[in-house]
Amino acid sequence: MAQTPSPFRTAEQRSRDRQAKKLALMEAAVRMFNTRGFHATSLDDVAASLGVTKPTVYHYLGNKESVLLECLRFGLKQLLDAATAARAEKGIAADRLRSFLIVFAQVNMSDFGRCVIRTPDEALSEESREVLRGLKRQIHAEMRSLIAEGQADGSIACGDPNLLAFTLAGALNWPARWFDAHAFGEGGGHSPEETARRLVDNLAAGFLPRS
Amino acid sequence: MAQTPSPFRTAEQRSRDRQAKKLALMEAAVRMFNTRGFHATSLDDVAASLGVTKPTVYHYLGNKESVLLECLRFGLKQLLDAATAARAEKGIAADRLRSFLIVFAQVNMSDFGRCVIRTPDEALSEESREVLRGLKRQIHAEMRSLIAEGQADGSIACGDPNLLAFTLAGALNWPARWFDAHAFGEGGGHSPEETARRLVDNLAAGFLPRS
Repeated sequence: MAQTPSPFRTAEQRSRDRQAKKLALMEAAVRMFNTRGFHATSLDDVAASLGVTKPTVYHYLGNKESVLLECLRFGLKQLLDAATAARAEKGIAADRLRSFLIVFAQVNMSDFGRCVIRTPDEALSEESREVLRGLKRQIHAEMRSLIAEGQADGSIACGDPNLLAFTLAGALNWPARWFDAHAFGEGGGHSPEETARRLVDNLAAGFLPRS
Repeated sequence: MAQTPSPFRTAEQRSRDRQAKKLALMEAAVRMFNTRGFHATSLDDVAASLGVTKPTVYHYLGNKESVLLECLRFGLKQLLDAATAARAEKGIAADRLRSFLIVFAQVNMSDFGRCVIRTPDEALSEESREVLRGLKRQIHAEMRSLIAEGQADGSIACGDPNLLAFTLAGALNWPARWFDAHAFGEGGGHSPEETARRLVDNLAAGFLPRS
């Protein structure tokens, strides 16, 4: 005889459920931060967009600054994960750097990445800023070290890996401001993937050694 | 016998005086916007930093949003002037583009340029945003047309001038976030001029044709 399924959720189900709710709240919040700005966003509106009330947001994420901080950490985590994934690839460093940069640009065209680029430092407390600065420094260090590896294996030509990392990051952060996911961008009407690839091609033309 | 100088200022002196006061107020305001953010800046503090009171700021520049708008227009005007000056130069388009880009990057490391990059759109009314968007579109069009001229005279290699303009602008806007004028930047401790030149060298390596 088939066992009657328990009406109680397992610990694992509860945890998954909690994560899904937290992420849904973060997604609703990040879209409002991106369109209205941090100051003009109210947690009441974020909650209402999911048919709940503000105490639910507090329960899962805390106050408005905590919500913003969670969104920014999530975006920065995606950039760091892109670096980790690229670092694990085989082959020459120039190819690993390209893989990283293409995902980096795509993250910056997505809701969480856009929030990272568009949020002014002043929206946050000094303590939160320090947390984010630490993550940003890690991402910058990852990019710089991939460039330095490319100098070592001869696949990247560059004078100053630190300054090149700033050059590349700037070019690939900027889509957070100009890329319009609805219109597929002014950059020729391409998808985020295709736009990222073309941006990185422009930059790679600069850092690949001239034969 | 020498004529006794008139104790009354001429119309020209009054106009110069007025411009100098307006600029001093804008400079005080833009520095506070950049360090504290728009929302946390009060016109009382801006006025106090020059030993005057808020009505003086209102008299010369209007309310806080007008002050911000004037600062942003001033920054964007410097970028447009850089394009106009570069366009008037002789020689191949790649050289004119480089001249433009080097000044473009330096403006973005200065107070007014930093404010342009760091101010989120949401700080402004829809009307002000439209004014700024118009100026930004002009600057983008200038860059794109210099690139297209370079394609025509063979001094620039690129697939899509529009996307290359976004690539270059992003890389050279970003110093508004990372360049620290006091420490002369993390980019190797160079001056704004030298940093701008090195950033543009990184980018030019990508758009100059391979021989």
